[in-house]
Amino acid sequence: MTGSKERIDDLGRKGYRLIQNPEAFCFGMDAVLLAEFAVAGESEKVLDLCTGNGVVPILMAARDKGSSFTGIDIQEESVKLAGRSVMLNGLEEHFNIIHGDIKDLLSFTQRGSFDVVTCNPPYMIHGGGLINPRDSKAIARHEVLLKFEDVADAAALALKSRGRFYLVHRPRRIVDIMESLRRKRLEPKRMRTVHSFADKEANMILIEAVKDGGCQMIIEPPLVIYEKDGTYTSEVRNYYKDT
Amino acid sequence: MTGSKERIDDLGRKGYRLIQNPEAFCFGMDAVLLAEFAVAGESEKVLDLCTGNGVVPILMAARDKGSSFTGIDIQEESVKLAGRSVMLNGLEEHFNIIHGDIKDLLSFTQRGSFDVVTCNPPYMIHGGGLINPRDSKAIARHEVLLKFEDVADAAALALKSRGRFYLVHRPRRIVDIMESLRRKRLEPKRMRTVHSFADKEANMILIEAVKDGGCQMIIEPPLVIYEKDGTYTSEVRNYYKDT
Repeated sequence: MTGSKERIDDLGRKGYRLIQNPEAFCFGMDAVLLAEFAVAGESEKVLDLCTGNGVVPILMAARDKGSSFTGIDIQEESVKLAGRSVMLNGLEEHFNIIHGDIKDLLSFTQRGSFDVVTCNPPYMIHGGGLINPRDSKAIARHEVLLKFEDVADAAALALKSRGRFYLVHRPRRIVDIMESLRRKRLEPKRMRTVHSFADKEANMILIEAVKDGGCQMIIEPPLVIYEKDGTYTSEVRNYYKDT
Repeated sequence: MTGSKERIDDLGRKGYRLIQNPEAFCFGMDAVLLAEFAVAGESEKVLDLCTGNGVVPILMAARDKGSSFTGIDIQEESVKLAGRSVMLNGLEEHFNIIHGDIKDLLSFTQRGSFDVVTCNPPYMIHGGGLINPRDSKAIARHEVLLKFEDVADAAALALKSRGRFYLVHRPRRIVDIMESLRRKRLEPKRMRTVHSFADKEANMILIEAVKDGGCQMIIEPPLVIYEKDGTYTSEVRNYYKDT
């Protein structure tokens, strides 16, 4: 993990760039979609849980000016990459990258101090001992160090009342996710299903939950990634346009 | 309610027809979509809760040969219409229409005796005293006599283990619905969102839950009703083709 395999990717927004290490974990479409789905108003405080190399808040910063962003991750290597990407893009003033465990959130930040929380959490249920808990790709993808309950817990602690929690996850666990969110008084209010093609099953879901929100869900138009011919749909092409 | 306003509609399948009374409640797109979404295998026993004029099982019978159908409704007028539509289509051998309250299901049928339960329940939360509880349209649309919990209860009682429950509902209550289903050991396994146009919010959801099923959801491709020009999409056109 000396950085020899590092690369710098153009994020396609305002010339922002991201330092990534393919041996650890590179951002994917899920991070891009989450950054588009999440909205931060001017002067709002945003916390990104499991921030990894910082792609979600850096993408949001390219659009949502005037917000301030905190990212937290348990993997020291990722936190270093995120910090360097923040500097590379000249965003130091608006960013704070923390190395820490979100299960211990209140040692880093005050309860109820954020307007917005985002998270692209580990998706996979960790069933047994097959994963090396020091493998950084495994930590980012599997619930090795973190269960969804822990993520919902941290979001509920960090958010002020009426604050918004944006997350991306897999459809197969949607019932668990909704139950966990509601248990933490994070009421799911808005959802999009993401489909690679219009005639395929959803492979991701985007959810907005509101802390102490009332019970009412809107399911937005499906988000389709590719046209039949394999090119991006116009919606997704717009995500990669400089804003 | 003398039948003078009655009409007979062609269901567009095998020449099946349905007697409806527009002063009570006429079936809509939701019934057609539910009947398409639900699947009954040969010699399976199907129970339709809140069957109204019987449109869901009659539509299913046009496709799923060899199944037997029971419909139950609390409104006597609807039950009579359903019974007459069954006869009109020569389906007496495969149908049993019951006048009764699904909250009292075990006085009509044995616990765990159905392979499939379908329901197009009242959607609207009944907030107060503005609805006349003897208004048959209100009973079909609002939770006047019946809450979703009651529907889930009845489905759980009627189904054998591994039996399937198919329902259509509104997106805004999806979290409540999923919680209720899981509480009754009816695990949501498959869902479709229904959109009038591809770029519009969902206005219906179709859910399949499996009694005693494990936790895993598939979100199928979105079901879109209309093309941009206002004509039916090819999928919906196929629903109205004779089979």
